[in-house]
Amino acid sequence: MSAESDSIMRLVLIRHGESAWNRLNLFTGWTDVDLTDTGRQEAADGGRALRREGLDFDICYTSYLKRAIRTLNIVLEELDREWLPVTKSWKLNERHYGALQGLNKTETAQKYGEDQVKIWRRSFDVRPPALDAGDERDPHGMAMYREVNADELPLSEALSDTIARAWPYFQKRILPEMRSGRRVLIAAHGNSLRALVKQFDHLGDDEIAGVNIPTGIPLVYEFDAQMNVTDKRYLGDPAAIEAKMNAVADQGKASRPA
Amino acid sequence: MSAESDSIMRLVLIRHGESAWNRLNLFTGWTDVDLTDTGRQEAADGGRALRREGLDFDICYTSYLKRAIRTLNIVLEELDREWLPVTKSWKLNERHYGALQGLNKTETAQKYGEDQVKIWRRSFDVRPPALDAGDERDPHGMAMYREVNADELPLSEALSDTIARAWPYFQKRILPEMRSGRRVLIAAHGNSLRALVKQFDHLGDDEIAGVNIPTGIPLVYEFDAQMNVTDKRYLGDPAAIEAKMNAVADQGKASRPA
Repeated sequence: MSAESDSIMRLVLIRHGESAWNRLNLFTGWTDVDLTDTGRQEAADGGRALRREGLDFDICYTSYLKRAIRTLNIVLEELDREWLPVTKSWKLNERHYGALQGLNKTETAQKYGEDQVKIWRRSFDVRPPALDAGDERDPHGMAMYREVNADELPLSEALSDTIARAWPYFQKRILPEMRSGRRVLIAAHGNSLRALVKQFDHLGDDEIAGVNIPTGIPLVYEFDAQMNVTDKRYLGDPAAIEAKMNAVADQGKASRPA
Repeated sequence: MSAESDSIMRLVLIRHGESAWNRLNLFTGWTDVDLTDTGRQEAADGGRALRREGLDFDICYTSYLKRAIRTLNIVLEELDREWLPVTKSWKLNERHYGALQGLNKTETAQKYGEDQVKIWRRSFDVRPPALDAGDERDPHGMAMYREVNADELPLSEALSDTIARAWPYFQKRILPEMRSGRRVLIAAHGNSLRALVKQFDHLGDDEIAGVNIPTGIPLVYEFDAQMNVTDKRYLGDPAAIEAKMNAVADQGKASRPA
């Protein structure tokens, strides 16, 4: 465990484990799918890694989507910290994948080409095709978003759009808690976490394209008072982490490694 | 479903299902025990009863204890409402049972007599024997209560003490949400819910002794703007509810019905 001091702010990010649609290789986005048994296991492993490291928390954040909420619940069970306050916000949701939601990633690559799918998956500011308003996938019709201003809800998002909602939320709601000394845990999604990581690490719009966050592996950041990153590390076996990162990178290929 | 109008405030209470220590017939109080499979089933049944009735919620409250938190999680899963805001407070914890925590209810009745146990279980203002400060059960030493003022934490509670923390919490934190039109769900404990019910129904100190709240059965209150109860009903089969109430009432007897 790193030496702690009053001037260091620590933040832990954890990406939810495998979901039912990860397993089916479908574009998920805001579709509210459950974790698989593997995903629950990844969450429990992540919680145990935090416990082994002796990391504790004061407040937690997650998205509106059950795969992130359940990941957090499992981590808190493992830490015996179910009583911690948890704030849920749609601002931490996965990137909205527009009309691609529900399509198979490999089939989409075969139809539109790997290059187009890579653009949709990894370009900074190109949105996938938008949902039609009133589509059954349109968040405007969902109970989950009934308290959100209609003009804030997307029909498709590029990573830049995800940053435009997630980063101000972090700055306004989460960072003040960190500055007041509270230890924060965020359980969220591949792209809402990449949105934060891009800002923390001052990555360029092209650099973030190459960043894949492995599922269920706690990512521990430490910052000084000026929000400079003073330490950044994953809690887990390095080879397993690299294998997970490569698995994420391969999802958009027309033929996937077994 | 009752006719709804703007002037009616609805509140639903649900008591957690069977815990590991309910099953062992031990005084539980603030001991943080898990639900049994039966308890999880009761919670799921309660959630399904709410769904069948078409009841929806805007905000939820629960205690710091995992048997209530997990009951709420299961209910929200059944309602597909895991994204709702949940506030946890120790003010909604079960009554603190002092030095009786961990003792067998039947053995305690054999040792001290049924009458004494009935006094500890059901008198309004007689506290069970207090924990010694520093006892491993003393909440002052627990991570869970590290943000609570030490002088607020009990070493034993009578129902009057539980009311003295739960009722002001309800008035200051929950009632304003109800007055602003939000539909509230509270998942808590036999005695923290009895504390609220006594106030809602204006029951005398003796009258509340005869009130047993069955586990896992949603209790739906409706109030007018002056907080007069305009409707009160359990969602479930009346015979099953009565059987559950009697089971609670029998727990303190020296010999229990099978």
